[in-house]
Parts: sequence; C-alpha cells; structure tokens
Amino acid sequence: MPGNSFGKALVLTTFGESHGTAVGGIIDGLPSCLEIDVPFIQAELNRRKPGLDFFSSPRVEEDKVEILSGLFEGNSTGAPIAFIVYNQDQKSTDYDHLIDAFRPSHADFTWEKKFKIRDPRGGGRTSARETLARVAGGALAKLFLQTKNILINATICQIGEFSIRDSSSHLLPKEILVFLEQLKTEGDTTGGVISCTISGVPAGLGEPVFDKLHADLGKAMLGINSVKGFEIGSGFRGASMKGSEHNDLFVNDNGIIKTLTNHSGGIQGGISNGEEICFRVAFKPVSTLMKAQQTVNASGEPVIIPGKGRHDVCVVPRALPIVEAMAALVIADHLLRST
Amino acid sequence: MPGNSFGKALVLTTFGESHGTAVGGIIDGLPSCLEIDVPFIQAELNRRKPGLDFFSSPRVEEDKVEILSGLFEGNSTGAPIAFIVYNQDQKSTDYDHLIDAFRPSHADFTWEKKFKIRDPRGGGRTSARETLARVAGGALAKLFLQTKNILINATICQIGEFSIRDSSSHLLPKEILVFLEQLKTEGDTTGGVISCTISGVPAGLGEPVFDKLHADLGKAMLGINSVKGFEIGSGFRGASMKGSEHNDLFVNDNGIIKTLTNHSGGIQGGISNGEEICFRVAFKPVSTLMKAQQTVNASGEPVIIPGKGRHDVCVVPRALPIVEAMAALVIADHLLRST
Amino acid sequence: MPGNSFGKALVLTTFGESHGTAVGGIIDGLPSCLEIDVPFIQAELNRRKPGLDFFSSPRVEEDKVEILSGLFEGNSTGAPIAFIVYNQDQKSTDYDHLIDAFRPSHADFTWEKKFKIRDPRGGGRTSARETLARVAGGALAKLFLQTKNILINATICQIGEFSIRDSSSHLLPKEILVFLEQLKTEGDTTGGVISCTISGVPAGLGEPVFDKLHADLGKAMLGINSVKGFEIGSGFRGASMKGSEHNDLFVNDNGIIKTLTNHSGGIQGGISNGEEICFRVAFKPVSTLMKAQQTVNASGEPVIIPGKGRHDVCVVPRALPIVEAMAALVIADHLLRST
Amino acid sequence: MPGNSFGKALVLTTFGESHGTAVGGIIDGLPSCLEIDVPFIQAELNRRKPGLDFFSSPRVEEDKVEILSGLFEGNSTGAPIAFIVYNQDQKSTDYDHLIDAFRPSHADFTWEKKFKIRDPRGGGRTSARETLARVAGGALAKLFLQTKNILINATICQIGEFSIRDSSSHLLPKEILVFLEQLKTEGDTTGGVISCTISGVPAGLGEPVFDKLHADLGKAMLGINSVKGFEIGSGFRGASMKGSEHNDLFVNDNGIIKTLTNHSGGIQGGISNGEEICFRVAFKPVSTLMKAQQTVNASGEPVIIPGKGRHDVCVVPRALPIVEAMAALVIADHLLRST
Repeated sequence: MPGNSFGKALVLTTFGESHGTAVGGIIDGLPSCLEIDVPFIQAELNRRKPGLDFFSSPRVEEDKVEILSGLFEGNSTGAPIAFIVYNQDQKSTDYDHLIDAFRPSHADFTWEKKFKIRDPRGGGRTSARETLARVAGGALAKLFLQTKNILINATICQIGEFSIRDSSSHLLPKEILVFLEQLKTEGDTTGGVISCTISGVPAGLGEPVFDKLHADLGKAMLGINSVKGFEIGSGFRGASMKGSEHNDLFVNDNGIIKTLTNHSGGIQGGISNGEEICFRVAFKPVSTLMKAQQTVNASGEPVIIPGKGRHDVCVVPRALPIVEAMAALVIADHLLRST
Repeated sequence: MPGNSFGKALVLTTFGESHGTAVGGIIDGLPSCLEIDVPFIQAELNRRKPGLDFFSSPRVEEDKVEILSGLFEGNSTGAPIAFIVYNQDQKSTDYDHLIDAFRPSHADFTWEKKFKIRDPRGGGRTSARETLARVAGGALAKLFLQTKNILINATICQIGEFSIRDSSSHLLPKEILVFLEQLKTEGDTTGGVISCTISGVPAGLGEPVFDKLHADLGKAMLGINSVKGFEIGSGFRGASMKGSEHNDLFVNDNGIIKTLTNHSGGIQGGISNGEEICFRVAFKPVSTLMKAQQTVNASGEPVIIPGKGRHDVCVVPRALPIVEAMAALVIADHLLRST
Repeated sequence: MPGNSFGKALVLTTFGESHGTAVGGIIDGLPSCLEIDVPFIQAELNRRKPGLDFFSSPRVEEDKVEILSGLFEGNSTGAPIAFIVYNQDQKSTDYDHLIDAFRPSHADFTWEKKFKIRDPRGGGRTSARETLARVAGGALAKLFLQTKNILINATICQIGEFSIRDSSSHLLPKEILVFLEQLKTEGDTTGGVISCTISGVPAGLGEPVFDKLHADLGKAMLGINSVKGFEIGSGFRGASMKGSEHNDLFVNDNGIIKTLTNHSGGIQGGISNGEEICFRVAFKPVSTLMKAQQTVNASGEPVIIPGKGRHDVCVVPRALPIVEAMAALVIADHLLRST
Repeated sequence: MPGNSFGKALVLTTFGESHGTAVGGIIDGLPSCLEIDVPFIQAELNRRKPGLDFFSSPRVEEDKVEILSGLFEGNSTGAPIAFIVYNQDQKSTDYDHLIDAFRPSHADFTWEKKFKIRDPRGGGRTSARETLARVAGGALAKLFLQTKNILINATICQIGEFSIRDSSSHLLPKEILVFLEQLKTEGDTTGGVISCTISGVPAGLGEPVFDKLHADLGKAMLGINSVKGFEIGSGFRGASMKGSEHNDLFVNDNGIIKTLTNHSGGIQGGISNGEEICFRVAFKPVSTLMKAQQTVNASGEPVIIPGKGRHDVCVVPRALPIVEAMAALVIADHLLRST
C-alpha cells in the first residue's frame, strides 16, 4: 500500500523526482466555484526557491507551475486539479559519484532496502524538490481557507542553538548570519525549529479518537524531509508543569467562550476550540555536507563521499512555506470532513 | 468522515464510553494461523489498570476482555477479531455536577461544539477508558510482531521536572514518589515523558512521501489522550546540532551494514534502517484536579467546578502499555503494508 | 488489506461467525443528535430471520440486538455505535462431516486457499448469518435517511423462472409456492431477482469518476452472499435499445426539472438526478442441497457430501432486508460525503 | 470526499477534461523493478482511439502518452508513475450551443446540481476522453499482471439486439455493420454487451465480506461511462437455475482441484478459485444523437438541442480496452492486497 496521497476529504497525490521530467500532483476534493489565483500559487512556490540567499543551495530554477485541469474560466469545477512543474536543471552528472555509496543520514540505504532500485540523480524521489508539489497543493488549500478567514503563519524560532524571539522580522539576527557563514566555510550544516500559528479556525474541527486534529498536523509535519519532532501548545515543556498551571480556564468574553491561556495550543481532546492553533516543528541539520564523509557502498565496502553537490547550510528558511502548506492541507481536509 | 479507525493494512476500529455498556473494538487484517494468547491480552490490559498504586485513580475494575470472533481452536482465521470489555463500574452520579460545566482543558467544550450533544458520564468517549481498546488491539498486534522477533519497550523518562535515568527499573525514584504524594495532597497533577524503543524491525518499513514510518508513529502517539509532543531519534535536540555531529555514519559490521550512531532513531527518509527505533512522547498534566476551578457552563455563565471525581496524579505510568500498543499497531500495519 | 469495512463517510465494520460467540459491528460517522429507535433495528433483523415460512431454513434464533455504545439518553452522540447479536444456536456437530470436504459452490475451497485455515462450523464467516450485521447497520442508516424523507423498498421480482408482476403483495403467487414446495421435496434450491427502489434522494449524490453512485450501489449488492448480477435503470435490456428510445428527456414540471422516462434509473453520469433510483439484483440458487453431492476433500480425494444441514430453498425472500440495508448504507454514505 | 482515485494497494488517480490542457493520472503502488514498456501503453491507448472506423466519432487525435516520473533506466522505482496526454483538438466552439441546455441522459444536469458549475466544452470531465487515463493506468497494471501470466481479454458479445457468437473475430458480422450504418443514417445510436475473461488468476484473491473480488470488478465496470449492468459467471441467468444445475462440482484433475463447470465465474465467496474469471458488462446507447432533441435549459425553459457534435453510433468497440484496463487494475490491486 503506497503512501503518496495525503488527506481524506481533500486528497493531495504527488509525483516526481529531482532530475526526472517533472514534479507535480493532483488535488481532489477542493470545493467548486473557488477562484483559483494562479499567481498566488506561483508566489508560494517562489518562497521555497533555492538560491535566494547565501545559506541555501545555489541551484536556481524557474519552477513555473502549470495548472492542467479542474478549472473553467478561472474557477474550480470540483474536478481534480492537476499541476505540474517541469524540471529545468538536470545536470545528472553531478551525482554520478553517489550511485553506489550510501550517503550518511540520507535515504539511499533505506530506499535501496525497500525498493531494490533507486533513482540516484539528485536523490530522486527523496529530494527536497518533492516538496514543490506540497507547496502547490497547500497553496490551493490556502485559497480555500482564505474564504473562511483562516490564516497560517510559520516563522523561524531557532537556528542551531540560537533562539529567535522577534519572529515577526524576516531578517535573521546578525549573530545567526555569522554562524551560518562560518558553517558554510567549514562545509557543515545545522538544524532549527519552526513555529506555526493558525488563526480563524472555528471550534469543532478534528475527528477523535484517532484522527485528532493535532495528530493529523503532527503526521503532516513529520512527513516533511528532515523533521524530527513536533509539539502542540505547551508540548514537551508541558510535561513538567502542574495541572493547576497548565489548565486553560474558560471565560465568557462578551458572549464568546474563550480560554485565559492557551497551553492546549488551540486543540482540546483532538478538536479545535476556536483559539489560535500553535505548534512547533524541529528540523535536523542538512545531511549533505561540503566535507568528505566515510560510508559504505552497496557491496558493503568502505568508501569516502567527497564534499560535493548542491546543498543548503540550513533548510529551515526554505521550509517555512512547506510547513504552512502541510498545515493548510490538514485544516482544509478537516473543514471538509466536518461539514 | 469519522476517525475511530486506525491503520490501513491492519485496521483497529474502537467503540465505547466510560460509563456506557462496554468498550471494545474490531481488528481487521491480522494474518491467519496466528496463535492468539488471550491471557497475554488480559495481562496487557491489567498493566493499564487504575488503582494499582497511590498516585493513580482509585477506580478499580475487572476489565476482563472477551474475544467474540475471528478465532478457531485458538488461532486467528483471517476474519475480523472483535473484543469487548464490559463496564462494571457505572456510578454515573459522580459526574452529575459536570453536565453543564466545561471542565478546563478537557474536551467537554470542543465535543459540545462539534456534536451538540455529549455523554457527560465520566467523560464519555473522551475518557481514558477508551484506551482499553487500543491496548487490546495493540496486544493482538504484539502477538503478530513477536513471531517476527520485534519487541517494543516503553519506559518513563521524566515525571514533572524529574528526569529518570535508569529506565530499566520499574520502581520510581524516591524523590519522585515524594513529589507525587505532595501533588496528591495539594489536589494537583503533573505530566511526564515516555521513551519507547522498538527492536528487531527489519530495514524497509515505511511508505514515503506521506506515510513515513515516524509520521505514522507520531500520529499514533499524538492521538493518545494528553499527548502534546513527539520526537524521533535526536528530536528537538537535533535542531541545534551540526550535520557533522548528527549524521549517522554507515559501517560494515561483519557483513551487516549498520550505523555508528543512531540520531536518526532507526528511520531514515521515513523508512526503517534496521537500527533500534526510538522515540519520545510528552504528556501534559492530568486536567482533572482535586481542587476547585473556575470555568463557564454551556450558557456561558461562570461556575465553579469542585475538586471531585476520580483521577490520577500523573497519567504517565498507566500510559506505558498504551504507547506500546499504538507503536505495535503502527509497526504491524507497515509490516503488512510492505509485504 | 482487509475488507470488512464498508463506506467512507459512514463506515460499517462487521465481525462474527455463524457458530462463534456473536455477530455484530460498529458504525462510525452517523450524525449526532439522531434518535435511535432500537425496536426498529430489531424489527429489521426480524425480517431476515430464518424459519418464518416453509421454504427457508428451520433454524430459529432470537437474534436480539444490543447497542453497546454511541448513545446518550436514546440519541446518537457522534461516537461509534457498536451493536451485537449473540449466537444462541451453536450445534456445531451438525457440520462435523464438512470439515474436510469442499462443499460445491461454497467458499470452503477459496477460504482454505486464501487463509490456510477456516472455521467450518456453519460456514463460519461465510455464513448468511454475517448479514445480520449488515441489516443492523443498514437500519441505523435508514433512521438517518428517514429524517431526509428517503425511503427504500425492495421487492421480489423473480423466483426461479417465475416473474412476479405485482410486487406490492408480500404473498408469493400460488404457482411459486407450489414450485418451492416441489424443490424442497427434491432437496433442490433455486435463485431469484430482487428489485429495489429508493425515493426521495436529492439530485447531486455520487462522486465521479470512480465512486459513481450506481457503482457503489453495485459493489454493495455484489458483496451480498449469492449475488451474481446487478443492473441500474434499463440495465442489460438497455443494451439493445436505441438512443432515441433510451434518452430520458428533461421537462419542466411546475418549476421542477424532471425526466419523462427513467431508463437512467435515477442516476446520470454517476450522480443522482432526483428521480427514483431503481436497480435489480440477481441471486444464484442456494448452494447447500438436501441431496448428496460429489466433491473432493482437502487432500484432493473424492468424497460425497450427504444432503444434510439447515438451508433455505430460496434465499431471496430473506434477502429483501439485506438489499435494503446495503442500499441505505450507500445512500447515507454519499449524503454525508456530499454535504 | 472526492472519487477520482481507484484501488487500495494499487491506486490510480486521474485528472483532466475533454477540452482542457491535458488528461492523465498517477499510479501509486506499482512494484519496483518492473520493466515499463511505454510502446505497449501507447498501443493500448491507440485501441480506444476514435475515428478508426465508420461507426465511431470522427475526432482524430494523437493521444501520445508521456511518462513523467517513477522510472529509472526504463524500470519502475516504486515511486508514483505520472503520465499525461495533452489534448490536441480543442475546438470548443463546437459545443457553445450546449452551454445552457441539459443534454438528455448526459451528466450536464446532475453535474450542475452537484457542483453549481461545469466545464461545458466537450462534456468536460464527463467526456469519454477521461477513460484515456484509465487505459494508461490499466496498461501499467497489465505489465505487472503479465509477469504473473495473468491475461485479460474483452470481446463484444452483443450490439443492439444482435448477439455475437464468435467473439474471437475482430470483425463485426455483416448484419451488424448494416445495422450500425442505418443507425448512423438515422442519426441514432445503440448499446451493447461486452464479455471479459481473465485467465491465470491464482486462487485466493478477494477480501470478504465487502471487498469481494467480483464486487470490486462490478464497481470498476459500473464506473465506466454508459455502463448499466454487470454480471459474474451465470449472472441474471443463474437466478432461474436450480442449485443442482448451478453448483460447480469439484474434481481432482491430476492433483489440481478444479471445477467441472464454471457458473461461479471463477469466484466463490468473493475469492478467486483458480478457474477463469468471466463477467459481462452492459452499455446503454450513446446519449448524443445526430438528431434534434427536446430538453430544458438551466432556467427550466424548453429548448431544442440540434443534432450536432461528434459522437459514436455505438461505444462498445472502443470500450473493449477500457473494460480490460479496469479489470487489470482490480486484479493487480487484489494481488498486491493479498501478498
């Protein structure tokens, strides 16, 4: 049973490899009569583009999205919407030295074990390029959520050991820029944490006991490349609190029932309570290094992987639109499941 | 679209409320010709029983499981296995004072918003009693995994602010017992963290790009009552590491390809790599307090909830078999999906 | 991947064997705040009871249904509704002679091939007793449909070679009664055809291109034991018509768009058009005979199966509530999928 | 919940409208290391091409399929395989007169009721052009089945009122050609019946009690445009037989257990028994006529639809590869579900 579809009422199915013909997907279940703002979808894709700053990969592509179906005169018809981004940059020779070697902490080894074959060009299906289809699908979900005044906002709250307080700024603090530049010089990489908030979600979304809203958000985030952790509301910090501190007391705020605090992160018993949904996602450091690493090849022989190939020093800035896209897919799916 | 089923190739569907007639479930997809050790299932249920020690709820029940179908002469036939635990203790009057009030950080409010009706007796479907069916279903999955030499072990690694190093002991350190006793006196509660390892999982389980093995484990854990966070391998700590520290180098260990470290937590690119799978789960403090709390009722009027009712000071000790059960369901599901 | 669940938005999962402890099921996704008329469910079960007339099986059971969950003060809560019918009559010795022999046109052989084990008592999971859970689940779906004024009515339109014109009568014509009595004397059986109509279905139900409404109805019917054929509207007869005869012309009937004829059977392009839905279901003759039959056993040796065991001469009269139940599940599922 | 995906272990998701940019799909779950014969896929598509003979539509297109993903050096990698056929012929003005009128027995009215919007160009998503993606997906499934020596063969067994005995010939008998030519002159159309056999299916496929093999075949066939009926084995004829005639007696044929007759159609109790699977599918007459028809428009006003537009006199010859494709998807899905 394959795993390239996501969602139950709004289903995104994706395809494509880093150096194949194209990446893309089909979104099925989007309501009809929705105005589809294609430039918005393109703008979302541009947010995840590599090469926009010094600490991400130098590979620059057009990544121009085309809608292939499901629209009539600019509106969704209720039929599946297929979209495609053709791959422009297919210098597959860059990766020839990797065909037999298992890159450390990449999926080369596990993919080989599972499928007995793999597309070694640029990581194939395991490339971050796969997330293009998530962002395009998520942009379509966002267009639907916007009609319900639901807004999603992801910000960086940690890079390496540096916390970021003022997440409203899109400029990284100077100390972090220095840190990233130094990593680049060393040929090394780092991880980080993204915080995401969703406002405007009505109370009542989520399907206990297994498809709780935060369980689906967690699955969505953990399915993104490099993600190692997810927490909702108080998260791991909540484990050390007392119940009397942690409980979110209900109050009547001019006729609307609200909570005084939001340790629940906007979800109680797996169902949204109308407060802002907030969660955090941990990313490991990028596995591809610019320095040589010891590993083995498919025959089990020790080999050295040279520090070569395109890569980001830190994936977190480019992951912001991906986190938002997956969150949008989950919220839209649950909106459609519960209506 | 409802959410009371879990899994794709091995599907557990559960039912039941705290003070209804019974709780139970149906597991569909378990291989045939598997010897079903009913005393083992009962023993697993006994592990989550309340009332075994001073810091958990005084409600004591039989919780005797009955298998209703799917067996012939003690072996699974491939037909769905239904199991049931009748509720013995239905003193619903204990909960009468709660019918109109929304208990803080419980699911009363959200359930009301979603369904316009709720069973207020003991929390109804949102009661921890629902997890009985998870444990029974998980026990069936464990019986299958045991034939593959796959073992699952959950241990407490944190209660409140206290970390536990020697997780092999089943006795809590004295300082924690003192802390819990004090909380009980105060009518307060706390949370904790459970660590879980799975050994014997062959390389190759997991279905990218959305049904990655750790994504499904995360969803399974986040669906357990009170869980606020999940991390695999290095988790949130990994976010502050460098790639050169974090990468798990491959080596040839007498013909078997292994990794020198296991920051990946046994899963790379969403697929098991043959190393031990290890993850951690954060639980918030129990929401039910023995002290009075301010809240509102369904009419939005402020009311005081008295400190009354059965409850645990800390849910973590009783959650161990639940974490193991959900992990067993995920691994068994993926084993069956990939073969 | 198992197959004991039916539906997407309204999911029925069933369990149970003919001579096991019980048969039953869980229905998940039924709307909350629905009054659950348990006597109605029981009445539906009584309609499929054997032993009510001379041409069906002499096995008489109570078949008393119990609801185990999902109700509060007589109304659905949105939680899964589990129901159970305990088996009263477990004279398994009746079937001992069948353990090794493959009964002709039964599922003994195929079940053995698939699962390597089978419950031989009364056909185990393949017994018609399995349909109890369908009827109970369908009764719950009917309660929901009744609130939408959707009514389902199945009638016998053929038994053996005898067509039945006046399907409104619940009494079989005398010539058919004579035919059935003669078959009983001979130890033989026959098949038949059931016609079913569904009125009150609003236009707009059905999910092209694969989950067309009649495709799901067809799957539902073909999944009933002994069903060999399904046709919607004009069905096989339509194949020999001309387009100019078959097309259902649209007219404006006092502001409502209707069709002059209904060869479409109430479904066009896989979506209901507001006309009465009508379909027909063909049942093969009962496979269990009262006369000896030649077959082989599990070792491939020829054996004679004596004409013994409980059985019906014709399954069609008892299948009426089953056809209705499965139709109700499909329509309710699609109602919930499309809202 | 949308309906544009088919299958559980082998999932085909399709997209595209008659006069949009392209039609295509994604197939997920095909085993890795399978040699993908692209010319075979193209040849299958060519079989359903219009314009090859006088009684089908004059629209001639290239219908050239491109594979976009999931292959490496000509073999499947286990990643989703996307394929696309760009639309060449988009003379949408042909259909302008239909925008407001509901064509009789088409899906214009129901689509409008369901989605409030529709793509009127060539029938949009409801066009027979949608089946291109089924044929391409089915061709991929066939490539997998061929490695298991499973072969599928659909033949015409009835056109209008004319039965065809010698289905091995690909030439229609002269009386039928005369009949079709006369219909063309009259501007009328007719229906027909296709018979399909599947050989080489091992015993053991099918998932009772709901996903019986013939139930899934039935759903697959009923989801094809214009299909009104489905029967397996003896089908509707079986309803009038006696059990003693209908039962397929088991015999030992040189160590292999076979049946003497095959009224079961190769499936017993929903599971394949190793005999040839055989079923029949009824198609209604094409709804588009070359003569004027009375109908109403979206405002409910009576309008006349002129006899204009491309169409087939009888869809059955072109439906052969579609029937085979859907059958291949079902068998491959169940092979992968049961292993």
